[in-house]
Amino acid sequence: MPVGTKGSVKGLTPADLRSAGAGVVLGNTYHLYLRPGPDLIREVGGLHGFSGWDGPMLTDSGGYQVYSLTHRRKLSEEGVEFSSVYDGSPHFFTPELTTRVQEDLGADIAMVLDECPPANASREYHEESLGRTARWAKRCKETHTREDQALFGIVQGGLYPDLRKESLRRTVELDFPGYAVGGLSVGESREEMLAALGVVAPELPAEKPRYFMGIGDPVGILQVIALVVDMFDCVLPTRLARHGTALTNDGRINLKNAGFRRQLGPLDPECSCEACAGVYSRAYLSHLVRENELLAHRLVTLHNVHFTGELCRRARAAIEEGRYKEFMKAWSSRYAGPANRGRSSGPAP
Amino acid sequence: MPVGTKGSVKGLTPADLRSAGAGVVLGNTYHLYLRPGPDLIREVGGLHGFSGWDGPMLTDSGGYQVYSLTHRRKLSEEGVEFSSVYDGSPHFFTPELTTRVQEDLGADIAMVLDECPPANASREYHEESLGRTARWAKRCKETHTREDQALFGIVQGGLYPDLRKESLRRTVELDFPGYAVGGLSVGESREEMLAALGVVAPELPAEKPRYFMGIGDPVGILQVIALVVDMFDCVLPTRLARHGTALTNDGRINLKNAGFRRQLGPLDPECSCEACAGVYSRAYLSHLVRENELLAHRLVTLHNVHFTGELCRRARAAIEEGRYKEFMKAWSSRYAGPANRGRSSGPAP
Repeated sequence: MPVGTKGSVKGLTPADLRSAGAGVVLGNTYHLYLRPGPDLIREVGGLHGFSGWDGPMLTDSGGYQVYSLTHRRKLSEEGVEFSSVYDGSPHFFTPELTTRVQEDLGADIAMVLDECPPANASREYHEESLGRTARWAKRCKETHTREDQALFGIVQGGLYPDLRKESLRRTVELDFPGYAVGGLSVGESREEMLAALGVVAPELPAEKPRYFMGIGDPVGILQVIALVVDMFDCVLPTRLARHGTALTNDGRINLKNAGFRRQLGPLDPECSCEACAGVYSRAYLSHLVRENELLAHRLVTLHNVHFTGELCRRARAAIEEGRYKEFMKAWSSRYAGPANRGRSSGPAP
Repeated sequence: MPVGTKGSVKGLTPADLRSAGAGVVLGNTYHLYLRPGPDLIREVGGLHGFSGWDGPMLTDSGGYQVYSLTHRRKLSEEGVEFSSVYDGSPHFFTPELTTRVQEDLGADIAMVLDECPPANASREYHEESLGRTARWAKRCKETHTREDQALFGIVQGGLYPDLRKESLRRTVELDFPGYAVGGLSVGESREEMLAALGVVAPELPAEKPRYFMGIGDPVGILQVIALVVDMFDCVLPTRLARHGTALTNDGRINLKNAGFRRQLGPLDPECSCEACAGVYSRAYLSHLVRENELLAHRLVTLHNVHFTGELCRRARAAIEEGRYKEFMKAWSSRYAGPANRGRSSGPAP
């Protein structure tokens, strides 16, 4: 799911997103609540009408941003008080408020308000926190009224297998139409992340969609798919693009490197996106990236979103044909080839 | 002619430029000479191959940028020495060099190296300068070899009618396939600008294209067309766009104004560009502009380029139908309506 933080995926139109094969597009409740505000978005047709994207959308609850963007915040059983990252103004998110805000935003999928403790929080903290997250989830569900919007629960519990299972049990007993695994990909190692996901994934209801929050690097996507995950989001493909880094089947390339200045070929000869379809050479894109031209951000973003979507389509085909393990191994090995060794392991990027 | 300073029109692809009805696209020799350099561009197929724009292109000689961007420069009969705006490195432009550089860039139209004195330069300075510009034009013509590229001469002479005529005579006697009027729209009043153009336009060879350098505001375009000009360029439409200002048939609008926050209609209901064609409301574009989102720059740039192109197409139709004066009067009066009075007169923007 490409991330359209403030109601647009950086530089891309809905038509671009369709051509890139985007499935669900994600919007950030924290940002959209602060600017331009849920009242305005509801008035002009919800996020779909506002942004012109008529495909599926998901909004997060804003809880993660309260933790990652705000230094000053005050947590209580009632909710979380925080200062706006834009102007320092005070705000108070409760499960009821973020649910109503997401109903105004009107995405197809909304998320419960959860607490996302830091990776290094203590066991005691996680224990207390997952209880609060479960009680908040219940309040979200009781508040939620839109029948054309699915509200997903979120499993927390840090890196503690028994706490993950307890959070899972308490979330699943609320009976949501879909479940997310949150609080991972926040600084722990890739091995720890996969281990924690491995604890909960087998116990999630098999017939409901599963969403792993916050992974977007190609190898990581394949790893979580292997643990039976259906959905994932991350700003990584779009953020990398704005820094001049393109994803290719042979690993990441940074277009600022001098070696690309005279290369005539496309970003990735195996890619069929608009940026790779014959018009633009690596030489040109490398020049645009160096000059910080808007067209560079647009074209490399389009490519990275298309590339990630295409990877998911290939993964789905491999699953359907019963050859996922082989596909994942071969694909990851080529991507993390000799020149790229070490980039796709270690802490989640 | 939309301006693609560094080899791209801000945020737009060649397909966008085609859809916006762009005729000629302009590239800046000063910037492209410094980065990525003419050798590289020649190697990868010239500006056409490099940028993917297969329509007509024009490059200026770089002379104007030497004057407008560089504080340190040293002018002599041989050429002009200057420091790069990027890194302060020393460079020396001669008529021979800028002609060869433009042959490497490979646009369809190249320009002679001229001197563009400030609007307040003395008569004596203009007299000396126009002589040098004429001698440089001769050296450019003698250097120029590409038969698939037209080299245009440039008429200077400031605001002095007799100097304008002398510059015209000395340029036309060199027999170029097209002529530009330069050194205007550089700080003088709109009335002075039109008066100076009015002196030379009737004496330019009737069968050859005429290019007025540096005008891009809609009313100004109609005014120079009325004085029989065929071509004009300016960064105004694209620069305004990046500051959130859109051109409409009812005048300029600044999308940052609070009044647009809840407006459901398109930028201009009479425009058929991608930004106006039904997907994007003023409310959404206003939000994107406020948030400085890449998509705002892209869509408003596309709109302004399309809008300016459409204005030129309507002007051409009016000329063909023998009703240009009426068209210009009616169009300009609506554009500079009560709310916009004063924006299209005074110093050229």
